Amino acid sequence: MTGGPVIVLVEPQLPENIGMVARAMANFGLSELRLVNPREEFPNEKAIATASKADHIINGARVFDSLREAISDINFVFATTARERDGFKPVRSAVEAADAMRIKENSGQHTAILFGRERWGLNNEEISLADEIVTFPVNPAFASLNIAQAVLLMSYEWMKSGLERETDTAFRNKEMEPAHKATLYGLFEQLEEALDVRGYFRPKERKEIMVENLRSVLTRAAFSEPEIRLLRGVVSSLDHFSPKLPRGAGAPDHRKRTKENSN
Amino acid sequence: MTGGPVIVLVEPQLPENIGMVARAMANFGLSELRLVNPREEFPNEKAIATASKADHIINGARVFDSLREAISDINFVFATTARERDGFKPVRSAVEAADAMRIKENSGQHTAILFGRERWGLNNEEISLADEIVTFPVNPAFASLNIAQAVLLMSYEWMKSGLERETDTAFRNKEMEPAHKATLYGLFEQLEEALDVRGYFRPKERKEIMVENLRSVLTRAAFSEPEIRLLRGVVSSLDHFSPKLPRGAGAPDHRKRTKENSN
Repeated sequence: MTGGPVIVLVEPQLPENIGMVARAMANFGLSELRLVNPREEFPNEKAIATASKADHIINGARVFDSLREAISDINFVFATTARERDGFKPVRSAVEAADAMRIKENSGQHTAILFGRERWGLNNEEISLADEIVTFPVNPAFASLNIAQAVLLMSYEWMKSGLERETDTAFRNKEMEPAHKATLYGLFEQLEEALDVRGYFRPKERKEIMVENLRSVLTRAAFSEPEIRLLRGVVSSLDHFSPKLPRGAGAPDHRKRTKENSN
Repeated sequence: MTGGPVIVLVEPQLPENIGMVARAMANFGLSELRLVNPREEFPNEKAIATASKADHIINGARVFDSLREAISDINFVFATTARERDGFKPVRSAVEAADAMRIKENSGQHTAILFGRERWGLNNEEISLADEIVTFPVNPAFASLNIAQAVLLMSYEWMKSGLERETDTAFRNKEMEPAHKATLYGLFEQLEEALDVRGYFRPKERKEIMVENLRSVLTRAAFSEPEIRLLRGVVSSLDHFSPKLPRGAGAPDHRKRTKENSN
């Protein structure tokens, strides 16, 4: 058991959906699945096939006759619903529910999330067995999340709740930090010299402001060390070489800049 | 056009997936879909059927021969990838990307999110046309998000980015706020009196601590006004009525408590 909320499907009708649920769970680190009175016999070949690499979740899933039995060892239960219900259950967003579950699981409590039937979700009696309701901010005009999608969203928020910062990703390109200023100034120097010898900063009176503007542009881009290396290679190429000319043309090849070649 | 990022599918193979993408978008308020070189002719009956109520998105989708053309009017492009790539693209979580898109869209910029082929996603050239990479915090051992699921997660984060507080839900049960203290004290009073006349707070010396403990329990539960109304009805029932007795038994029926009946 890897920890994390138990996913409970109440009277799921289609085995393929159960397989999709298992796949959604596996993406985001959940593994414990319980089924209450599934319509088709279980374990089920179609569920296993649809689950693909997540078939271990299907094979480990427990089947119960009633919801009450399925959650008997659980401390805190969330019920997912799409439409508003009368009653006394607090309503949470998926983010709030995930954060609450993370705290409870970390302190040793068992949590579970209930998902209802494909066609009409959970009934009021089933919701009354839960502690709180979870809902997603769907557009009411087009609300059509299926069970596997609802499980996906909850599993995703569960994974995020366990990251140090919500915005952590599986990988982060560390080379994207802005370079040290010394590196940036090296680019300025090289580029400004290459431009200067080409008469770019003319008339003389405008040179200061033109340099300032150029440096602003290169600074705001926040180039990283590797990016500046690349840009300096570009500048070198432009600076030290001439475009390839048709055979026989007379322009000198400035492969190496010499005192004679520069202005 | 409702605003929000354009969803771009690059060389989608299965029309059913396009339909599922449209449904995912509609759930969370997105409506502009673009297809680059779809494998099957488009518009497509299977896509429309799978899209269900979101078929307006299919019918409004634009088809392009190349990715470059598909994003020519876009200011900022995110590319979704599952695995790490070499290169200079910043990597964002879905939350960061959604927040960034919300700011840009609010200021009039057009944004887009690229999703690749079912089997192998986007190629490096396509990613190089984007500004930044988005990725989801999947468990690398079981990473298996399909296109429609990736669109669902991005659309969900887009919707959340536009809510005033990230934890807003479509509906919130306002009756769940704790009641005013006066209401709570009314419950204390009624309950304590009903218990007192039944000899609950005995021996006399323990009454103070027993009352304190009872009030702590009822306070920590943070009952709301309707909940307290309900509980007071429960107390009334217990206080004013006797259990139904077999016919002929002699116990008085305390339907109305009178001075004669009370201790």
